[in-house]
Amino acid sequence: MFNSFGNILRLTSFGESHGKGIGGVIDGFPAGIRIDMDFVQAELNRRRPGQSLITTARKEGDKVEFLSGIFEGKSTGCPIGFIVWNENQHSNDYDNMKEVYRPSHADYTYKVKYGIRDYRGGGRSSARETISRVVAGALAKQALRQLGVRITAYTSQVGPIRLEENYTAYDLDLIETNPVRCPDPVKAKEMEEFIFKIKGEGDTIGGVVTCVIKGCPIGLGQPVFGKLQAALASGMLSINAAKAFEYGDGFKGLKQKGSEQNDVFFNNCGRIETKTNHSGGIQGGISNGQDIFFRVAFKPVATVLMEQHTVNLDGVDTTLKARGRHDPCVLPRAVPIVEAMAAMTLLDFYLIDRTTQL
Amino acid sequence: MFNSFGNILRLTSFGESHGKGIGGVIDGFPAGIRIDMDFVQAELNRRRPGQSLITTARKEGDKVEFLSGIFEGKSTGCPIGFIVWNENQHSNDYDNMKEVYRPSHADYTYKVKYGIRDYRGGGRSSARETISRVVAGALAKQALRQLGVRITAYTSQVGPIRLEENYTAYDLDLIETNPVRCPDPVKAKEMEEFIFKIKGEGDTIGGVVTCVIKGCPIGLGQPVFGKLQAALASGMLSINAAKAFEYGDGFKGLKQKGSEQNDVFFNNCGRIETKTNHSGGIQGGISNGQDIFFRVAFKPVATVLMEQHTVNLDGVDTTLKARGRHDPCVLPRAVPIVEAMAAMTLLDFYLIDRTTQL
Amino acid sequence: MFNSFGNILRLTSFGESHGKGIGGVIDGFPAGIRIDMDFVQAELNRRRPGQSLITTARKEGDKVEFLSGIFEGKSTGCPIGFIVWNENQHSNDYDNMKEVYRPSHADYTYKVKYGIRDYRGGGRSSARETISRVVAGALAKQALRQLGVRITAYTSQVGPIRLEENYTAYDLDLIETNPVRCPDPVKAKEMEEFIFKIKGEGDTIGGVVTCVIKGCPIGLGQPVFGKLQAALASGMLSINAAKAFEYGDGFKGLKQKGSEQNDVFFNNCGRIETKTNHSGGIQGGISNGQDIFFRVAFKPVATVLMEQHTVNLDGVDTTLKARGRHDPCVLPRAVPIVEAMAAMTLLDFYLIDRTTQL
Amino acid sequence: MFNSFGNILRLTSFGESHGKGIGGVIDGFPAGIRIDMDFVQAELNRRRPGQSLITTARKEGDKVEFLSGIFEGKSTGCPIGFIVWNENQHSNDYDNMKEVYRPSHADYTYKVKYGIRDYRGGGRSSARETISRVVAGALAKQALRQLGVRITAYTSQVGPIRLEENYTAYDLDLIETNPVRCPDPVKAKEMEEFIFKIKGEGDTIGGVVTCVIKGCPIGLGQPVFGKLQAALASGMLSINAAKAFEYGDGFKGLKQKGSEQNDVFFNNCGRIETKTNHSGGIQGGISNGQDIFFRVAFKPVATVLMEQHTVNLDGVDTTLKARGRHDPCVLPRAVPIVEAMAAMTLLDFYLIDRTTQL
Repeated sequence: MFNSFGNILRLTSFGESHGKGIGGVIDGFPAGIRIDMDFVQAELNRRRPGQSLITTARKEGDKVEFLSGIFEGKSTGCPIGFIVWNENQHSNDYDNMKEVYRPSHADYTYKVKYGIRDYRGGGRSSARETISRVVAGALAKQALRQLGVRITAYTSQVGPIRLEENYTAYDLDLIETNPVRCPDPVKAKEMEEFIFKIKGEGDTIGGVVTCVIKGCPIGLGQPVFGKLQAALASGMLSINAAKAFEYGDGFKGLKQKGSEQNDVFFNNCGRIETKTNHSGGIQGGISNGQDIFFRVAFKPVATVLMEQHTVNLDGVDTTLKARGRHDPCVLPRAVPIVEAMAAMTLLDFYLIDRTTQL
Repeated sequence: MFNSFGNILRLTSFGESHGKGIGGVIDGFPAGIRIDMDFVQAELNRRRPGQSLITTARKEGDKVEFLSGIFEGKSTGCPIGFIVWNENQHSNDYDNMKEVYRPSHADYTYKVKYGIRDYRGGGRSSARETISRVVAGALAKQALRQLGVRITAYTSQVGPIRLEENYTAYDLDLIETNPVRCPDPVKAKEMEEFIFKIKGEGDTIGGVVTCVIKGCPIGLGQPVFGKLQAALASGMLSINAAKAFEYGDGFKGLKQKGSEQNDVFFNNCGRIETKTNHSGGIQGGISNGQDIFFRVAFKPVATVLMEQHTVNLDGVDTTLKARGRHDPCVLPRAVPIVEAMAAMTLLDFYLIDRTTQL
Repeated sequence: MFNSFGNILRLTSFGESHGKGIGGVIDGFPAGIRIDMDFVQAELNRRRPGQSLITTARKEGDKVEFLSGIFEGKSTGCPIGFIVWNENQHSNDYDNMKEVYRPSHADYTYKVKYGIRDYRGGGRSSARETISRVVAGALAKQALRQLGVRITAYTSQVGPIRLEENYTAYDLDLIETNPVRCPDPVKAKEMEEFIFKIKGEGDTIGGVVTCVIKGCPIGLGQPVFGKLQAALASGMLSINAAKAFEYGDGFKGLKQKGSEQNDVFFNNCGRIETKTNHSGGIQGGISNGQDIFFRVAFKPVATVLMEQHTVNLDGVDTTLKARGRHDPCVLPRAVPIVEAMAAMTLLDFYLIDRTTQL
Repeated sequence: MFNSFGNILRLTSFGESHGKGIGGVIDGFPAGIRIDMDFVQAELNRRRPGQSLITTARKEGDKVEFLSGIFEGKSTGCPIGFIVWNENQHSNDYDNMKEVYRPSHADYTYKVKYGIRDYRGGGRSSARETISRVVAGALAKQALRQLGVRITAYTSQVGPIRLEENYTAYDLDLIETNPVRCPDPVKAKEMEEFIFKIKGEGDTIGGVVTCVIKGCPIGLGQPVFGKLQAALASGMLSINAAKAFEYGDGFKGLKQKGSEQNDVFFNNCGRIETKTNHSGGIQGGISNGQDIFFRVAFKPVATVLMEQHTVNLDGVDTTLKARGRHDPCVLPRAVPIVEAMAAMTLLDFYLIDRTTQL
């Protein structure tokens, strides 16, 4: 049951990095939505490795093939199957990984859990799995667009370099103008140079993605266990290398008192709004119509090119040195994945909300 | 479907702050577990208001009555129904809240979502709902004890006062020796005084709960969407006032490179272990046998005693001044709730893991 | 997860026949529905033993107490908790059952499955559990009434005595005029006398409940695994003693050819209807606006008053003779339970259907 | 959520009759099971049209391609994606169906529900969808074989011709020796000739599949809503054209009294067994170790070759005459589908049962 995400709108994903491909089934997608295939492919391209000098040089074509559920350009309400074929299934690159457990990868935990392990490049635990999320997210975005909801994520920190201001201080239209996907061009340049340096060392670095949702209808989210923030957190923490989630003021707001942090209501020309937005657009687990924003921290990718200590399958101490290409910083590519998970969550909750009253 | 938590082990909760009581049904609890009723009540007592001068003075007896699923002192495998009756259902304290939306409460979002609102003291959005979690968590803890799993949470930050060290630096046996539930007696005193001062101002303050899980079997958690950290994050962010979740190094580790943050394996007298634990005991979404630890941030409680601006049900600007008692700092009482959510999550994943191989 | 029924609208039930009571939580019930408490109680009364000479003489008051989710007479959208307290928990009647497995009861299978058994009168496997269904069904019926959906069930067979005609041949308003709940007064009298004779023998007899749903909107049901008939079948076969389910022409239609059984469409004054209704109102798993009808077979109750062979807990052959009261025919009391399961299923599918298109 | 079947073991299916193919994702399949690909293909061949003169002459190759979850011949515990490509996607055969609603098909109900319809040969409501079930069932059977569980189904009725005896009277090894899949060679011949005659008339005929499960462990099934018979009924009624389900004595046993129908226990050389098996191997919703058996009725296929009355998309009365090939009797091909649904259900419940006790 754990390769599925969502309740009414539900993505079930399959596939390994070195199997035939990565795919999924999107169930519960509303009928009658016009699907822009170019947009779906553009979203996949944003996730794809090899887009710039600061990501992995590994080449993946990542063309999506839809298998069902779309007829004459529109969703039919039937499950939408899809696959992105793996072009390069040569797994000999990974032969040296067959006999050892790579540090901070899932090799060891998978082996203990399943008693069997697909050792070709991470198998199911590979970040290639996120392809299925980006496809589903691209469809969800198209449905949300009809509802006036816009989701935008960007890189707000790379290692020690970070944007100090809240999202309102930046021009989000600048995000896609640089390879780091950062709306501050000066910081973007700094980040890019930093990543390039890290790459040269054969090392990796983490950072933060910030995500903003504008135009969310009031009333999405369920009280108690299905709070909107709980669903968003679950989606974000399910992304490879994600280590933390905070929304609204998050950790930063802890020094403020309640009297400072409460978002008082006022009548804004006939519409009830809040004067501040410490809550991050969610109160009692339910969207209140203000902007929703949250931050997701990603650790450095575990694959580094220097020699590391580890053990082999028999538990004997040994060393491992990864060969070939590596991804020095996952942040730019994590941006569309964060957006995709948010889009699926919001569309799901929008559909659920329609069952609230007769 | 959103008043349920868990997959195999599933708590479904019900009840409002000023209705008849708070209760729930625990389905999927393993048969044959001896239930220590005193332990359950002790856990409820840890959550109860009025334990000390720094929590709300509101008195709640909070005696649990089990309704089914336990026979001759043991769980039968049948659903365990329970209720904690509300002793004080006088809702006249809340009459002044009937006509206004309290800032940073769920009043407004509930009203828009449902078209109807139980205005008596928060209704379903009240933190009294967490009673059901503590009861279910207390049962889960008893099952986990048989498996050698121990879950311990503590207050690690109150407003600006915080523990600077990782959990390994403290004697966790000291947690329950002070009303703040902080393992550092000096900091505990500081926190206590700070809360007392905030209380006198009629204001509130937030903070952080840190949670440590020792003895977790290797292999719990599901790859992809059911990663152990995703389930923990979802559980934690479903608690009232929770704003952030991080596990392992979380936000703090972002300045480190991959080569510094990887947890290398070594053979520790025949057992495969990691030399460091930046991963927080979870790799690829699955427990690796090391300690699991995470932190949850809680914002200040929204109910403050000073006058605040807001709007009434007609959207007209007005002011509101809460009367009576308030809870200056939710942290000490959040500690058992965090443990309860962690216990339910772990037991659920333990049961799921048993279906992995024939 | 198996003490829950439904998807969006979900009943989670708890309780044993000789525990404190039978109750449940109804989650996902739409907000703003006015709840007629007298109607709920009247439905419970229809299920209650001791209504006439042909049911068990066991007296059960069966007053429902709602615990949450209803405010000022209306549903709030929050979970509706409820309990019917067991008035007579004296389990000494059942002491002779502690040491043996009663034939065709769940005693043996529960013991093997759980390793522990609540031997007091069936425990969780008792038909008293259906109380929770009748309560939830009574609420669902009130929501469905707003949508113009009417659900009516009746006894159509008792042992060898059966109604030969389809439901259209009878005046369904006569159902509640006799204790058997049969719309044919002559057959009802025959059935009543037959049951009375069986009761005198200390024996039991089974039969069939027929259910008709009028006014169902077009479009309820989901293709493939969530076909409306599959959900109805699952609900009906989850009732104690139910052995079979058929809808539309069911088994009876097998001798007809496709050309005879197809329901051709025609334009009935601007509305698309079918000339016949062999399909029973469902095509491709989805309601087509015609009457839905189905039949459920119930075996004779397993508790008979004559001596029976069996084994004790050690597997040693022995005999058992039940004492006291028994229920000679479950059919009259099964009628409201069948209606309740149908009502929950339909309301659930109505809510789901609202998520089909944006 | 309705294109998924099962709880722990969960098949999510996709695909339309004239889209790219029919496929699915099998989640929760236990790790380490050796997969015999020839067996999977053999099962698909049993379902395939064109096997004999009495089924549709439509040719479908139906080769399965696995996409993930199997490594070096064994299941890995990761989701198993698969697809059977549609070889013949020419939908011009169906152009005359674009403008009308075929009687007793899902055309009309799909159109009302979704507002859009894939009119090419039934689209999602086509029986080709059952391919995904047969693939998943073939895997489940291989896991069940390790547990000693054997599932066998056969045709027990075709139109008016039926086997009068219970399954114990027949040699089940004879089932696959004739195209009807009937264990009584004489009746099989009669049935075959009857179908051939019906086929010549351009008409169709229904019948009954009987299914027997031997070697089922004691304890599978969940009390209350997850009774084993409820899950089996749900699975069976989700198959296209299925109209009825009965297990054990079903409708036939209604004339017997409780004293006649109870299955008394006895000690059979140290094993607790029942002397009779009216219960069909399930008591209180849980398997008791005796053979499980049930019957599923299938109506005649709706596609007949004679002219039929209907309406067009505008609701105007018209006639329709299907061209080309048709399937006179679905029974022989339904046999492997019934087995597949039973296999998935049993394996799922076996896995769930492992969570019952610590």
